[in-house]
Amino acid sequence: MHELPKGYTYAVAAAGFKKKDRLDLGLIVSGPPAVCAGVFTTNLFQAAPVRVCRNALASSATVRAIVVNSGQANACTGEQGVRDCETVRGMVGDLAGVPARDVLPASTGVIGPRLKLELWRAALPALQESLGQAGPEDVAQAMMTTDTRHKVASRVVELSGGRVRLLGMAKGAGMIGPNMATMLSFLVCDAQVDAAWWSGVLSREADRSFNRVIVDGDTSTNDTSLALANGASGVNADSAADREILAQAVRDVLHALAYELVRDAEGGTKVARICVTGAASDADAELVARAVGTSPLVKTALFGQDANWGRVVCAAGRSGAVFPPEKLTLRFGDVLVFAQGRPESGDLDALLEPVMKASDIPIAIDLGAGTGSFEVLASDLTREYVSINADYRS
Amino acid sequence: MHELPKGYTYAVAAAGFKKKDRLDLGLIVSGPPAVCAGVFTTNLFQAAPVRVCRNALASSATVRAIVVNSGQANACTGEQGVRDCETVRGMVGDLAGVPARDVLPASTGVIGPRLKLELWRAALPALQESLGQAGPEDVAQAMMTTDTRHKVASRVVELSGGRVRLLGMAKGAGMIGPNMATMLSFLVCDAQVDAAWWSGVLSREADRSFNRVIVDGDTSTNDTSLALANGASGVNADSAADREILAQAVRDVLHALAYELVRDAEGGTKVARICVTGAASDADAELVARAVGTSPLVKTALFGQDANWGRVVCAAGRSGAVFPPEKLTLRFGDVLVFAQGRPESGDLDALLEPVMKASDIPIAIDLGAGTGSFEVLASDLTREYVSINADYRS
Repeated sequence: MHELPKGYTYAVAAAGFKKKDRLDLGLIVSGPPAVCAGVFTTNLFQAAPVRVCRNALASSATVRAIVVNSGQANACTGEQGVRDCETVRGMVGDLAGVPARDVLPASTGVIGPRLKLELWRAALPALQESLGQAGPEDVAQAMMTTDTRHKVASRVVELSGGRVRLLGMAKGAGMIGPNMATMLSFLVCDAQVDAAWWSGVLSREADRSFNRVIVDGDTSTNDTSLALANGASGVNADSAADREILAQAVRDVLHALAYELVRDAEGGTKVARICVTGAASDADAELVARAVGTSPLVKTALFGQDANWGRVVCAAGRSGAVFPPEKLTLRFGDVLVFAQGRPESGDLDALLEPVMKASDIPIAIDLGAGTGSFEVLASDLTREYVSINADYRS
Repeated sequence: MHELPKGYTYAVAAAGFKKKDRLDLGLIVSGPPAVCAGVFTTNLFQAAPVRVCRNALASSATVRAIVVNSGQANACTGEQGVRDCETVRGMVGDLAGVPARDVLPASTGVIGPRLKLELWRAALPALQESLGQAGPEDVAQAMMTTDTRHKVASRVVELSGGRVRLLGMAKGAGMIGPNMATMLSFLVCDAQVDAAWWSGVLSREADRSFNRVIVDGDTSTNDTSLALANGASGVNADSAADREILAQAVRDVLHALAYELVRDAEGGTKVARICVTGAASDADAELVARAVGTSPLVKTALFGQDANWGRVVCAAGRSGAVFPPEKLTLRFGDVLVFAQGRPESGDLDALLEPVMKASDIPIAIDLGAGTGSFEVLASDLTREYVSINADYRS
């Protein structure tokens, strides 16, 4: 059971955007105006809701509501897409009793088609009825696309002024790569925070969590991570000590969600924790970690439970990072498999069998070239991933 | 029927490196010393045969023989791997009656294990017996790994001094990406050429062909492209006009082989010709072409015969290239699907159905930002690719 942050209400509805009788519309409303931080996709093509959120946050540090839908991305829909967003904000604002400008929209689904406004309108009574009856897990469920389960994580921390609660929800199972995933994540918190500080915390922690998971290396048009802090606990986080505690809690929640994203990768069966150390720079370590984590050959070997270390070494060698190849050491779990330019002797396959059979596989690469490091979580690549994505629109 | 370049003999044998009774050892011998150009993998981990070839070509511009095996890559085998190469060069040199230093080795297969020299020795009598009986297609077959068919292309051209012949053979169906594929290619020609010029031709044309095919974006430790010209035709290619004709023929042969590599991609069913124009620079065009050609989401959509233009646009938008998104236009075949930031109206799926059903799919992206351009050939991503690579070692 999650201890819920105070001052938020939730609503969901099944509008039928893509499938009948499936929750696909969610709403989070904060009683008090909530300080809001946002991090968005770096794709040049920014979906209409992303553009609307950016604009809204540029003119106000607080918001009252987030409305999210699955089934339609409202991306590559031109200016009409922005107008459709505004219509939605107006409708939802009326329903929740807040100004339209205080409603942030987020969408996920197929790129291209316009929002089906008639379905939105038809769903409003059910959404209204649900307000205050639903919980954050329902919203997490309404934003699922190919996700097989909803993703929620929470923390409670004691600050000097008292207890505050954080809860995060996320979706996203494919089109996940460097610089945000097709990923929506919303964090709600009842602490009272400084807006600039809160924004810095979200940027830093999203970078350390969501930006370090790899499913397929794609970066979507709709990636959105929002963090709300509404102060409803009455507890202020303004001392350095309190801020450190709260930032750590944000980190824990986002890391837990990021892990869940990879664990629920489209068709995925494995989570590889690829940890690169000993690089000439952090940037070089990142090149290696991402090359290994995106390599289809490494990812299919993970799926096959095959400790095919040659593919890992090969991906590191073509990553663009500079290091002396004879210095690279590679471990799967605790087992040293490669050093001094050649595999370790002994029956590696037998030693590695239990490591590869586990669902979480640690892969540690030391480049022997410096002190730079980087870590990513990567999924495997499976027949099921192909099936899901070859058939997604049909 | 190929008209064979003069002065070359071929041999093959089934040594049993990986499977019994399968051709896995090939030999090309040139009667006269042949001018030899080479292009090799850019991976930091260079397989032993790659290191040996580089050294050999650094000290001599001519060679007499190429020996190739499949089933074992002799990569990540340390100094022992180089010593094993030298043993092989000696054995094969004795067999062919040429100095060991004039024998270039090439290997493809699993990374890690040492060459099985006892199997090499046992296969020598059969290889000797085959010398002069086999043809280049047999060698092309002996170097196959997961390839489903051997790949050979040839040209005959008339130079001012007479007729010369070129023939190329290649292998490689996976681990194929930027900067050479897991790819071996050998071109034999009977023209008499200047070594420096010949080397320039191979570098340039390999870059325009093999370096522009994408199966999975990986770059192997063993990539090797060698081009031999032995002068056995007695025809010299030293005038500018003759050189242009011969260079064009090299280009034609390498492009034909590169196309065959993609057509025979592991599990592949489609060849996408991704042509990017209107970029601010050729480098930006290349970023977009490679992002689209490596995107698992684009590649699975191709497999699903789904004209999922949103994924193409999305990959272009996250490629790192800079362009005004509202200027991008996208065509599948002759059908304009996206312009001015939104999809074209009309029943695109119906219009695109015949385009997507074809085995070759032209995807043209204009960025509206300049005159830079780049083209790649990319395969699709299929369940079969995953099966092949999840099970490759077992």
